[in-house]
This record gives sequence, C-alpha cells and structure tokens, in this order.
Amino acid sequence: MRILIENVWILTMDSEYTEYKNGYLIIEDKTILSLGDMKQCPDVQVDRVIDGQGGLLMPGMINTHTHAGMIPFRSLGDDTPDRLTRFLFPLESQAMTAELAYHSTKVAIAEMQLAGITTFYDIYYFEESVAEATAEMNSRAILAETVLEDGCDSDEKFGGLKIAEEFIKKWSHHPLITPAIAPHAPYTNSTESLKEAANLSTKYNVPLSIHLSEMTFEMEKYGQEYQQTPVEYLEAIDFLSNKLLAAHLIFATDDDLVILAKYNVFVAHCIGANTKSGKGVAPLQQMIDKGLKVGLGTDGPSSGNTLELFTQMKLLANFHKTYTHNRATFPSLEIVRLATLGGAEALGMEKLTGSLEIGKKADITLIETDSINMFPIHDPYAAIVYSANAANVCEVWIDDKHIVSQKRLNNHSEVTLTKNLSEAMTLFKQKAENILQNMD
Amino acid sequence: MRILIENVWILTMDSEYTEYKNGYLIIEDKTILSLGDMKQCPDVQVDRVIDGQGGLLMPGMINTHTHAGMIPFRSLGDDTPDRLTRFLFPLESQAMTAELAYHSTKVAIAEMQLAGITTFYDIYYFEESVAEATAEMNSRAILAETVLEDGCDSDEKFGGLKIAEEFIKKWSHHPLITPAIAPHAPYTNSTESLKEAANLSTKYNVPLSIHLSEMTFEMEKYGQEYQQTPVEYLEAIDFLSNKLLAAHLIFATDDDLVILAKYNVFVAHCIGANTKSGKGVAPLQQMIDKGLKVGLGTDGPSSGNTLELFTQMKLLANFHKTYTHNRATFPSLEIVRLATLGGAEALGMEKLTGSLEIGKKADITLIETDSINMFPIHDPYAAIVYSANAANVCEVWIDDKHIVSQKRLNNHSEVTLTKNLSEAMTLFKQKAENILQNMD
Repeated sequence: MRILIENVWILTMDSEYTEYKNGYLIIEDKTILSLGDMKQCPDVQVDRVIDGQGGLLMPGMINTHTHAGMIPFRSLGDDTPDRLTRFLFPLESQAMTAELAYHSTKVAIAEMQLAGITTFYDIYYFEESVAEATAEMNSRAILAETVLEDGCDSDEKFGGLKIAEEFIKKWSHHPLITPAIAPHAPYTNSTESLKEAANLSTKYNVPLSIHLSEMTFEMEKYGQEYQQTPVEYLEAIDFLSNKLLAAHLIFATDDDLVILAKYNVFVAHCIGANTKSGKGVAPLQQMIDKGLKVGLGTDGPSSGNTLELFTQMKLLANFHKTYTHNRATFPSLEIVRLATLGGAEALGMEKLTGSLEIGKKADITLIETDSINMFPIHDPYAAIVYSANAANVCEVWIDDKHIVSQKRLNNHSEVTLTKNLSEAMTLFKQKAENILQNMD
Repeated sequence: MRILIENVWILTMDSEYTEYKNGYLIIEDKTILSLGDMKQCPDVQVDRVIDGQGGLLMPGMINTHTHAGMIPFRSLGDDTPDRLTRFLFPLESQAMTAELAYHSTKVAIAEMQLAGITTFYDIYYFEESVAEATAEMNSRAILAETVLEDGCDSDEKFGGLKIAEEFIKKWSHHPLITPAIAPHAPYTNSTESLKEAANLSTKYNVPLSIHLSEMTFEMEKYGQEYQQTPVEYLEAIDFLSNKLLAAHLIFATDDDLVILAKYNVFVAHCIGANTKSGKGVAPLQQMIDKGLKVGLGTDGPSSGNTLELFTQMKLLANFHKTYTHNRATFPSLEIVRLATLGGAEALGMEKLTGSLEIGKKADITLIETDSINMFPIHDPYAAIVYSANAANVCEVWIDDKHIVSQKRLNNHSEVTLTKNLSEAMTLFKQKAENILQNMD
C-alpha cells in the first residue's frame, strides 16, 4: 500500500525545521518513504492520492501524560477543593471496573486521534483493558499500570506491582504498545514499593513514570519528614533513571532539575492541569536549559478536561510569556516542537516518531486551513499554536492505518463509542450523584 | 415567523441561573416569546421546529472588545517584541483601506457567529465600512471610530473626531448597530482630543471606549509626567462617565478601580491578549468586588488570534485560579456569566440581550453535546468552559435571523468571504513581506 499526500505545507519538525511550502509525502506501508517539494515528487505508482489542499502536514502529536480511563470524571466537581480525595479516590474505589476503563480508553483515544495525537503515555488501573482498547483503536502508546497502596484493581496492598509484572510480560512484544509501570507518587507509595517498581523497570527494560513535585503538601511532607525535596528523596532511594518520565514538576527547584538531568529523567509538562487546579507554573525554561527532554501532557480528562494539545500549546504560550513578561519567550515554532519531536524524545521514541523524516513511522496529522479561524497564515506555527483548535484536524495516519478522514474516525463510530461508555457508567453515575448530594 | 427549539438543556443565565434540563424555547419574530420545561411547552402553532438533541442552549455570547478590521494581521509577527510599532502602526498607515476593513470585518463576524457570539464591540478605522459589513452579516454591535493623532483613515491630526461625528449621525437609528467613538489610548491622544471625544459621546448620547492601563510604558509615562495613574489623569480631565468602556486595565490599582466604579465605567477583560503579549493578569476579582460591570473581550485577531470566547473562558479560569492558588476561584458558572449577561451589562445592553428571558431579543447559541470532547456532562457550565471549543457551536440566532445552522453560516459562503479578503490583501501582503525581510 503506497499513499501520496500532495499539495500540503509540510512542517517536518526535523532538527533543521525543514519546511516544504508546497510539498508531497509518500507513505509506504508503515513508513515515510519520501517527502519534499511538489516539483521533486517522484513519478511512482501509488495506490491512493490525498489532495491536502494547502493544509498543514505535521508529525502526529504526542501526549506524554494522561489517564485515558478517567473520561467518566470529566466535568465532575471541577471547581471543588480537595477533588482528589473527595471525588477521584472514592469513585475509583467504588465504581471503577475493567469494563469502564476499557470503554473510557476507547473514547479517550478517539478524542486524541480526532485532535491529531498519534502517541500517548497512559497511567491508570486495569491497564490490561486499557491495552486491549488501545490495540483496537490502533494508537501508539506507552501504557503504565499504577502502583498505589490501595489501587482500585487489586485487593492487595501495592497489588499494582504484581499486576504490572504480568502486564509487562504479556504486552512486551506488541508493535504499537509498550507496557510500563507507574508508582502514583512518592507520597502515595512506600519506599519499598517505589524501589520494587524501579527494579521491575530495570528487570524488564520498560519505562517507569511517577507524578512528582506536583502538590504543595507533597513538598511540605518531604521537607518536614526528610529535610529533602521529593526529587532528592527519590535520588536517595535509587529511584531515578533514564527510564523515568516525571509528570508535572511544578515545584521542582533548580537543584532538583540538576539532579534529574544527571539521570536523564524525562519530563511531562502539563500546563493545563497544573494551572486549572491553581497549583502553579512549572519551570519549563529552566528544565530545557538544564538539558532535560520535555514533552507536553494533558493529564487526565478530569484534570485538563480536553485530551488535545492545541489547548495545551495556547496555555503554554500565554503562561510562560506572562511569567517572564516577555512576548518573545517560547515562540510558536518551539511550542510545536514540544508537542511533536519533544514529546517523542520524552518518550524515548524519537527514532520512531515525532518528525516527518524518511524511514520514520507514518504518524502524521493534517490540519486544514480552509476554516475561517485559520485565515490568513503568515506563519504556520503561529496559526497552529494561536489560531487552531482540535476541530481543524482533518486527516490522521498512525503506522499503517488511515485513522481520521475528513474529520471523522475511519474505523469506529463516535456515537457507539460514547453510547457504550455511557452504559458502562451506570454505577459510576449513582455513586457520583451520592457524593454531590452529600456536598449540598 | 414562530420557531420552536425543543429537547435542549437551557442555561438561561438569568439572575437566578434558571435551568431547564429538558427544555423548549419559542422565538417569535425577533423576541423570546416563551421558554421552560418540555412538559410545559404550549400547544401553539409554529412555523419551524428545531430538535436540539440534548444540546446546551445559552444566550449568544458577547465579545466586548475587538478590532474586526485586523484579520489581515493574524499570525504575523506574533512573538516579536514591539509589535505595535513594528507591524501594526506601519501596516495600518501603508496598507489599510476601507475595502480591506470591510472584507476583514465580514470574515471576523463570520468567525464570531460560527463560535456563538451574537454581539460585539468593535474599535477600528473606516468604521463606516465596518458598519456596512456588520449590517450585511446581521450582527448586533457597538462600532466605535478610532481617534488617534495619525489615524490611517484621515490625513488630518485627530481626524477620527470628525469621522466619528459623521458616522454617529448616520448610524444612530440602525436596529442592530450602535455607533460610538474611541480615542485609542491616553498615550496616543492629546488632552484636547480626549475631551472632544468625551464631549461627542455626551452630545450624541453614544458609547465611548479607550484602551486603558494596558502598557508598562503608559504607566511610567503618567507616573513621571503627571504623578498620576492614567485613570487618575482621565478623571482629572473629566473623561470618565457611564458611557465609557475601558479595555484591559491590566495595571489598574485598587484606587483606580474605586475611581472607575464611582463613574460606573464598564470594563472589557481581555485575558488572552493580555497574557499572550506577556503583559500580565488584570485584577478581575477586585473589579467585580468594587461593583464594576465586566465583560470578556478577545481583542483583535492579531492580539488574541481567535475571536471566540471559549479560549478566553479557559484562559480566564486557569490564569485567575493560578494567580490566587485556588481552584475554586471563578467557578465555571461565573465565567459563563461573564461571557453572556456580564458582557451585556458591560455594553449597557442587559435589557436587550445576554440572557434567555421572555421579551429579550432572540440572540441564542446552541452547543451540541454529541462530539466526543463534550462527553460526559455532569455540569454544563464546566463542559462549556473546560471542554468545549468553538467548533461545538451548531446553531445561532440573532434578532430575527437564523445565522448558523448545523455549524455553517446560513446566508454566506465562508470560502467566498475569505477569498474576497485574500484578494483585498495584495498590497498588505507585499508591505508585510517587506517588514519581515528587513527584520532578517
């Protein structure tokens, strides 16, 4: 199968930011076979031609931190203090099931694909069901089973460790899915469970993730109990490695960043969730200056609410420009890089995806420029960051599949996906209603 | 003509925030005739029935500050310092024409209507052409001619004063359009021209607007030259009145807000433009606490880039929650209020529009909830603020016209609107290219 995409403004996002203002790209099977200026388009036989009509062709975007199983929580108690302990933990323990996680993940992936995201890093429970959903939806992903003292998918203390090991063994050879393990946070795990999770990551050579330096009480706890930051504590217990992706790091100090850089720890920057909850703005420029590899994350649908990166890119621009009082900080080109190649680097997948280059996987997003909100385009990166929204994405390819065509999923019905999830939410809705009633 | 909209979740945004979870609304000619629960829907003859399919029916949104003529500038030099003096003023003087302002305004209004905005407050040049475009597009609007020493639509110093007076006389009886006058800013106007503009506002009983306390150099100038804030200066020259809408007020002090409240000055809060340019976050809570009437504004398409309020609502939530370190600040209900009734109050139009109440004009927006990003809806206001984007708007009515139907303009071709604007931009593109080349 050979596909030619023609008449597109190609933003390769390679190391030189090569562009072809009127370009072509040929996909052969799962791979980018050739790309360049239309005038150089080779005269080869193709099975299908897509006319890009002057749209912006870019690498599929990469969401480096989410919880795809949490769609049921979206728009529930958003503006309520103590949301984690009031809604999230109780509802997970009372109403989260493998079936619910499965249907939620399918809906979450549909939303991400429709928004041009081709790879995501998930952390949740029932990750076996999450993996089945991901395989059916044909998304590239790192999927990490959560470890927590009382995880909702196990009756044992830190039962996630055992579940993760089985999960890793079972899924380690899937072409699109990389299994992983994720202790929830330093403050919800014992030192022993953290060490054990890190050991499993080393033993099976799989990614490791954690929520880190995200909460004010987390910073206070480690300061008071250990006279350390959470990052210093994790270094002291040998948890840090180049397998680790740390999400958030809102309150990371400069010294923390030096430590993380020493171990080549990766970072998921979740500006939307961090600021919607009023927590703060992570030191992104300092992370980059210290050499850390950073990608963008939406966080779960109950924290960031949307699972697309257009909102994240806009928020990133405005927050970091305002914090530095400098409109030139984080120009749009750099922000698009964080959403694509930056994300691939943060997932250790930069040889596979994140830019449009010959030999890389065909993870590709086409943004149409016919809609009024996209007019005019003096600068395509500015148009993506400041003007576009998820509904401007019109075509998406992942690996060997044409996933989104003319703004619709090719192989799934959006109505059926949400209908199935809604039906699986019966108990969840009852329990949520109980919590809401008890608040009044 | 009588239209029944049925099976909708009505968010009236009236003073009690009345909701009808399964509701109906009847439009007769230009007015809301009746609304309520589906069970109470009267058995009257109607000319047309719209099945809302469970969507969210809300008042048309109100954009209290924009420059509709500036679409040609969108995505041009976004991350460049000194953008006002490097791009905006030179290109306006070299390439802005009545024809360009006309076509730009039509595109801008199309974008706003497709995003559920039914009323806007424009400040620009060639306001006569802006008014023609507005009338053709059937939008409700306050349109203010700019006064500046060297305005681009007059060869005379402060020629906008004369243009404004003619414009006001000509358009003062239009059913949808209210003409107005807008000295650009204190720092770009002489004391005399400010006084004259205020006099014209009084003489013709029309709105007055100004950019105020927006720039750091503005604050420094008035501090150094007058030992006053710009607000104190405007009070001293008798410029303040209940006809005035002040845009921005980023650097307004608490004392400034007390002064503004004394004169019942209205405020346009433009969080997107203020933060994208790195300037800062205006003291919104303090404004409201002091009793000021505040609406939301996108600013021009070169400053905020999108002309819709979904982005503004999201940015407002995240910025104000982060600045107060409190996720409960500005709950979504309050933000939707600012985008609707708050905007109407800030334009002195709360008896006409801004909420769904019997007797008010039929300015109405329907947001569909079938798209995956809108699932589920535990809280409709949270879904609007945190999940929705402009592409979820599916139906819009203004006054006696059904403007948007199934996400498309009913009476205009989007392709033709942008094509006409693109053709009118020939000189503009050349001049913009010159500036960009001289920067390299």
